[in-house]
Amino acid sequence: MDVNILKKVIKRFLQEDIGSGDLTSEATIIQDQSGTAEFIAKGSFMVCGIETVAPLVFTTQNPIIEITHACKDKTQASPGDELLVAKGPVLDLLKAERVALNLVQRLCGIATFTALFVEKVKPLPVRILDTRKTTPGLRMLEKYAVRVGGGYNHRFNLADGVLIKDNHIQACGTIKKAVTRMREKVPHTMKIEVEASSLDQVRECIACSVDIIMLDNMEPGMMREAVKFADGKALLEASGGINLDNVKEVAETGVDFISIGALTHSAPACDISMRLKSA
Amino acid sequence: MDVNILKKVIKRFLQEDIGSGDLTSEATIIQDQSGTAEFIAKGSFMVCGIETVAPLVFTTQNPIIEITHACKDKTQASPGDELLVAKGPVLDLLKAERVALNLVQRLCGIATFTALFVEKVKPLPVRILDTRKTTPGLRMLEKYAVRVGGGYNHRFNLADGVLIKDNHIQACGTIKKAVTRMREKVPHTMKIEVEASSLDQVRECIACSVDIIMLDNMEPGMMREAVKFADGKALLEASGGINLDNVKEVAETGVDFISIGALTHSAPACDISMRLKSA
Amino acid sequence: MDVNILKKVIKRFLQEDIGSGDLTSEATIIQDQSGTAEFIAKGSFMVCGIETVAPLVFTTQNPIIEITHACKDKTQASPGDELLVAKGPVLDLLKAERVALNLVQRLCGIATFTALFVEKVKPLPVRILDTRKTTPGLRMLEKYAVRVGGGYNHRFNLADGVLIKDNHIQACGTIKKAVTRMREKVPHTMKIEVEASSLDQVRECIACSVDIIMLDNMEPGMMREAVKFADGKALLEASGGINLDNVKEVAETGVDFISIGALTHSAPACDISMRLKSA
Amino acid sequence: MDVNILKKVIKRFLQEDIGSGDLTSEATIIQDQSGTAEFIAKGSFMVCGIETVAPLVFTTQNPIIEITHACKDKTQASPGDELLVAKGPVLDLLKAERVALNLVQRLCGIATFTALFVEKVKPLPVRILDTRKTTPGLRMLEKYAVRVGGGYNHRFNLADGVLIKDNHIQACGTIKKAVTRMREKVPHTMKIEVEASSLDQVRECIACSVDIIMLDNMEPGMMREAVKFADGKALLEASGGINLDNVKEVAETGVDFISIGALTHSAPACDISMRLKSA
Amino acid sequence: MDVNILKKVIKRFLQEDIGSGDLTSEATIIQDQSGTAEFIAKGSFMVCGIETVAPLVFTTQNPIIEITHACKDKTQASPGDELLVAKGPVLDLLKAERVALNLVQRLCGIATFTALFVEKVKPLPVRILDTRKTTPGLRMLEKYAVRVGGGYNHRFNLADGVLIKDNHIQACGTIKKAVTRMREKVPHTMKIEVEASSLDQVRECIACSVDIIMLDNMEPGMMREAVKFADGKALLEASGGINLDNVKEVAETGVDFISIGALTHSAPACDISMRLKSA
Amino acid sequence: MDVNILKKVIKRFLQEDIGSGDLTSEATIIQDQSGTAEFIAKGSFMVCGIETVAPLVFTTQNPIIEITHACKDKTQASPGDELLVAKGPVLDLLKAERVALNLVQRLCGIATFTALFVEKVKPLPVRILDTRKTTPGLRMLEKYAVRVGGGYNHRFNLADGVLIKDNHIQACGTIKKAVTRMREKVPHTMKIEVEASSLDQVRECIACSVDIIMLDNMEPGMMREAVKFADGKALLEASGGINLDNVKEVAETGVDFISIGALTHSAPACDISMRLKSA
Repeated sequence: MDVNILKKVIKRFLQEDIGSGDLTSEATIIQDQSGTAEFIAKGSFMVCGIETVAPLVFTTQNPIIEITHACKDKTQASPGDELLVAKGPVLDLLKAERVALNLVQRLCGIATFTALFVEKVKPLPVRILDTRKTTPGLRMLEKYAVRVGGGYNHRFNLADGVLIKDNHIQACGTIKKAVTRMREKVPHTMKIEVEASSLDQVRECIACSVDIIMLDNMEPGMMREAVKFADGKALLEASGGINLDNVKEVAETGVDFISIGALTHSAPACDISMRLKSA
Repeated sequence: MDVNILKKVIKRFLQEDIGSGDLTSEATIIQDQSGTAEFIAKGSFMVCGIETVAPLVFTTQNPIIEITHACKDKTQASPGDELLVAKGPVLDLLKAERVALNLVQRLCGIATFTALFVEKVKPLPVRILDTRKTTPGLRMLEKYAVRVGGGYNHRFNLADGVLIKDNHIQACGTIKKAVTRMREKVPHTMKIEVEASSLDQVRECIACSVDIIMLDNMEPGMMREAVKFADGKALLEASGGINLDNVKEVAETGVDFISIGALTHSAPACDISMRLKSA
Repeated sequence: MDVNILKKVIKRFLQEDIGSGDLTSEATIIQDQSGTAEFIAKGSFMVCGIETVAPLVFTTQNPIIEITHACKDKTQASPGDELLVAKGPVLDLLKAERVALNLVQRLCGIATFTALFVEKVKPLPVRILDTRKTTPGLRMLEKYAVRVGGGYNHRFNLADGVLIKDNHIQACGTIKKAVTRMREKVPHTMKIEVEASSLDQVRECIACSVDIIMLDNMEPGMMREAVKFADGKALLEASGGINLDNVKEVAETGVDFISIGALTHSAPACDISMRLKSA
Repeated sequence: MDVNILKKVIKRFLQEDIGSGDLTSEATIIQDQSGTAEFIAKGSFMVCGIETVAPLVFTTQNPIIEITHACKDKTQASPGDELLVAKGPVLDLLKAERVALNLVQRLCGIATFTALFVEKVKPLPVRILDTRKTTPGLRMLEKYAVRVGGGYNHRFNLADGVLIKDNHIQACGTIKKAVTRMREKVPHTMKIEVEASSLDQVRECIACSVDIIMLDNMEPGMMREAVKFADGKALLEASGGINLDNVKEVAETGVDFISIGALTHSAPACDISMRLKSA
Repeated sequence: MDVNILKKVIKRFLQEDIGSGDLTSEATIIQDQSGTAEFIAKGSFMVCGIETVAPLVFTTQNPIIEITHACKDKTQASPGDELLVAKGPVLDLLKAERVALNLVQRLCGIATFTALFVEKVKPLPVRILDTRKTTPGLRMLEKYAVRVGGGYNHRFNLADGVLIKDNHIQACGTIKKAVTRMREKVPHTMKIEVEASSLDQVRECIACSVDIIMLDNMEPGMMREAVKFADGKALLEASGGINLDNVKEVAETGVDFISIGALTHSAPACDISMRLKSA
Repeated sequence: MDVNILKKVIKRFLQEDIGSGDLTSEATIIQDQSGTAEFIAKGSFMVCGIETVAPLVFTTQNPIIEITHACKDKTQASPGDELLVAKGPVLDLLKAERVALNLVQRLCGIATFTALFVEKVKPLPVRILDTRKTTPGLRMLEKYAVRVGGGYNHRFNLADGVLIKDNHIQACGTIKKAVTRMREKVPHTMKIEVEASSLDQVRECIACSVDIIMLDNMEPGMMREAVKFADGKALLEASGGINLDNVKEVAETGVDFISIGALTHSAPACDISMRLKSA
């Protein structure tokens, strides 16, 4: 996660929330008043963004703001925990409050939700992956939260990973033709992943020496057969309809990866509030 | 919702997902191939963004794409319903797919979730409101989804509404002083809203002829007393900890508005998929 | 007025004036030479932007520049007064000079012009308001200058205030229909203002419990009747063709607000010059 | 004036005025309603921006809007004249109205004001010039208006013209040293202009074969001597304190150019209104 | 190569070259004059950008311009060949000319230079690769030119490929530790490439099951040993100091890839000129 | 060269190269590790950008980075020379490396190549000029490099210089008409340059009192005649097909300027590498 790219995005978020100015605070708060803002956990969750993102929101709003305490990402928070302390002009603490909270509540939510999946599949040698089903504009941050939660990232965007899906296969005629065309063009640094929804397709993939096979919406039974058939010749990624109830069963089929869109599109937000004390 | 502002945002979302290009599709799909993409509902939900947002994602990616069918926002979708049909270059249909889906799944989710709250409080004369607890970067869209769901918008940002909270009151000493300062500065087009967490504060607000009082985290009993006390002299907004289970009880207290952060930060995404047919 | 938003705008203004570089200064001034620039008033006027905007122009050009003196906005300047002192690299003082002067001369002009109107209506309980007739790109700054001059701001843009004009009324059929549609949609934090050009329309507005009525281009006599009729049931705003000669008469009709486009589109610029001394 | 650059600027202006949407119009105007907007002159003035800028504001807001009539820039308008007719969605006509009017009222004002100066000095072979004292963000447009009014442009910014002022002379020690350094660096396509405030400095400039001498705040008598002394060896530009009352006297001294900051910073805005008819 | 991203970049290039307008053409060319511009080859080279980039420069400047002929990229041009024909407003053809030519001359140069390397190594099963040594701001275009010339792309940026260099190895202590840390974090879609400058390091890489080994500045002899040792267990990429004279010898060592920074940083530009005919 | 404009461009270059983050370094380098990076010359060349551009790349990536040594631009480098030393977080040194090197290798190349031409024409009183044949996006930097190499800049863009070419002449009918139209419009600060490809055209230019004549693709013999004919009445600029072999002969014809597109489009890049030491 690059700080410069993050700053640019945060500036836009602040502008969205502040508009042409904070009418209420500018009218009621004295210009030079400084104070202390504290983030307090209102529930139990895995911390994410408190160490890295929230401080940047505050210092982007005003570089004078000092972060005197910030919980490390990946630590566990309990209700009442003081997660972050920021000192500086009250006006700027209030202007940055909502953006900072809206971001970290979501990031803590994703990290916490991811950690639940990771916990379920322990100690199996399988990785929990995210997808491109992220909130538009927040992909970099949400994929960071998945890593904090113990998950791994699938490709970041269409340009840094190859995934041949049914539409591509259909357009080329066969998996073989699609893979051949792909091999002709893809940078040598990238593996080729192909989506398969039947064992026949798994076989075809193996025949083409595909690097990774995405098992699309398969039943655990079929996945087990795919694992047996692949026998280490390709990495296997389970995908589609996986939740906290069935993730363990999927993991036990022997697949190498499990990708779950819900990590980013359906993680419940965590509750954090900001408390202000005058200096 | 202004189309020009929306387009600018969508361009950024497309760039986030496409990066320097779609490696897979550019290698496997023939440049000039055109086809038809269909959005299919995978569950029951209220449609939002299909009429207004998804078409703009496709035409922003390539103005040649034609939308030949799009469900009106606010209609009810059932599993298997064809929500949208887009015709054009397959390459661009695939490039726009993920952004379009990520947006509408979220927007349908918010509209559907809002409609549940709206339904619960019928036929009471109370409005369900959103808050500023929206996803950074998506506020305009998410507030649109709340309206589609039958809810109403609270202020859009810090510049277009006045809300005097405990921090402002504390900084000024008393509610009276805060309101007086506010009156000195606020445009005459805006009402003044003040947060109150006790009946004493409600009384103080009424004494200052405040336009709206936000009843912050009050028990229904206390709200009822506030309603009685206010007696039409100020509008009352209930806020804090309201969910589908208790929203009716809150509504029955007689408050005018109920604001619910969860509408935008915790609405579960709806499931929609895109199916491609060659032309 | 948010500093971050202001900075972004100032960067564009500097780029407009500097282009690919200052040919003359870069050729004739030694790179590391530092000096002192002084802003001197060449007339009598109300100071605006000297405390808040000019320093930001200089420090945006080069954060090393130090502002060692700056007159408070709202103070009265006389010819020869030293308004501001900036120390730093001569090259950057010269590059920022024109943008800083162009801005503050205009802002001082607006504040001074506004103050003339405010003075004229004293001690009547009426507020002088600006309009949206501001210079494109400078609205935030110009509305700030109006406040410095003792005036008040009307809505900032089309999104943070409701003003139903003749075109809207015509489109809906009657004022009543327009107000009803508006009430169905507008956030509860906003008052509803309607433009009326006859006493009949004023009556219709009152009947609809409109919050504010804009009396459009009415004669003082008609305004007085409107005031009598409204009798406190709605706020009244006089608008159209008001100048320094007739503003007092308008104020004496008893309206609550007088909005004047000329505050921002026709305030004469004040004269300020920059003097440079080598350090 | 390049259309692409202009469009980019207009987009920002529209966004400033529209914000997150036009609350009033979106609530009261039916989505698909189309109509006709007319710009009507409310006074006598020289037209500027009606042919070139206003149409671009409307089509930038919505490319569907059709301009069926637009007065040529540089024609003379009388009260009641129909300056422009635009047809399209009423919603977009209303959203673009204020930005279009704010721009053209200012541009007409500058063209009209410039034409007054040009008229005064006829038929003398002298050119009326603008300066860099333009409104930040509007330089390209305001310099266009000066040309429409019959004036000429001085340099656009610090990068496309050389003007050695007292500060540069002081930094170098003498005019000669400043000019020598300048000659060492300046592109061969540019003339060298030097500011002189005494006849001694004029002589020094001539001795250095300067291309243009700016006579800074000189009395007409001294200008006449400068003209005699220069005798065609350099172009002479009068500058400082020139207004409609004294411009003719200045022109008669025989200078080649007269530059006037007031053209852009103090031209009174012209009055134009928009009238809407439903289609 | 995504058209939308390309357009955005081209807009900036046009603005750099046009500035506030084309003084010469706007003064000498009649506004509505239309004409035909032809690109003529002044030498022999491989065409690149004529089909894809130049048309976009013209239509970005003015969408009215029609491209009636454009050579396909990858075809061979001879002196005098008509490469492209564009019809439209002469003013816009002239404004777009320099940017279009500056781009395609460079792209043709890179494609032509790349093709020379590709030719040299035929028919060996080795791929010619580019590097990140591209012109800042032009990477997407330059990497496209390499592909047109028959070469292949290495990673696009630091985010879409893994390359462990000496600095990373040194920071971790050993190749093994670096690779282990990397495996812990890298998306499963990416191969791991490690730089080796000795046979010992090659061995260490193989021991760690690295996917690709970059043989950094090795003599052909050493490369041959590396190939022998690797024996298909890893892909091998030769890098450093490779030119048209030695590329064949390097290819004959049996490496899989040869990466050459000179493809993009030292390809001589091709000569193309634009000829204008009035319509 | 304005630092603010440069910074904005550098941010884009860094984003192009870093994408969503540096996968390799973020995985293998410890977050807080700091170190020292050195730029080492791998050949003999004139330094350009080391003093001015490279430091800005590093501090734009992270303002904490300290530049403890940087060779002055215009000094001569020999193989092994330490050109620059930067201290700070290793992660940021690595992230900024490629952009910094890609820029300075190109800038050193241009300065060095320009200096070769300048050397060839010594001690003749002729200036070597660049053209607009620069790399799109890098014009400001490349024109700086030409100046460092001892050359001079032709106009920066179409807005800050007048050059009437054959297309303009053809559109107007005669040189005289083109010049007359131009004089009617051009700011008085600019000289008028006309392209001539025959002695007849040179005569026509002189007859029109053109300031500069560009001798387009003339043989040295014809240039000599042009010089004789012009006899100081106009400045002469030789252009077209000039290289290191014939530049001296061209210079000896007596022209005032020689413009060479190859300075910027064909200067070979210089070789510089970065070496990292842990602190």
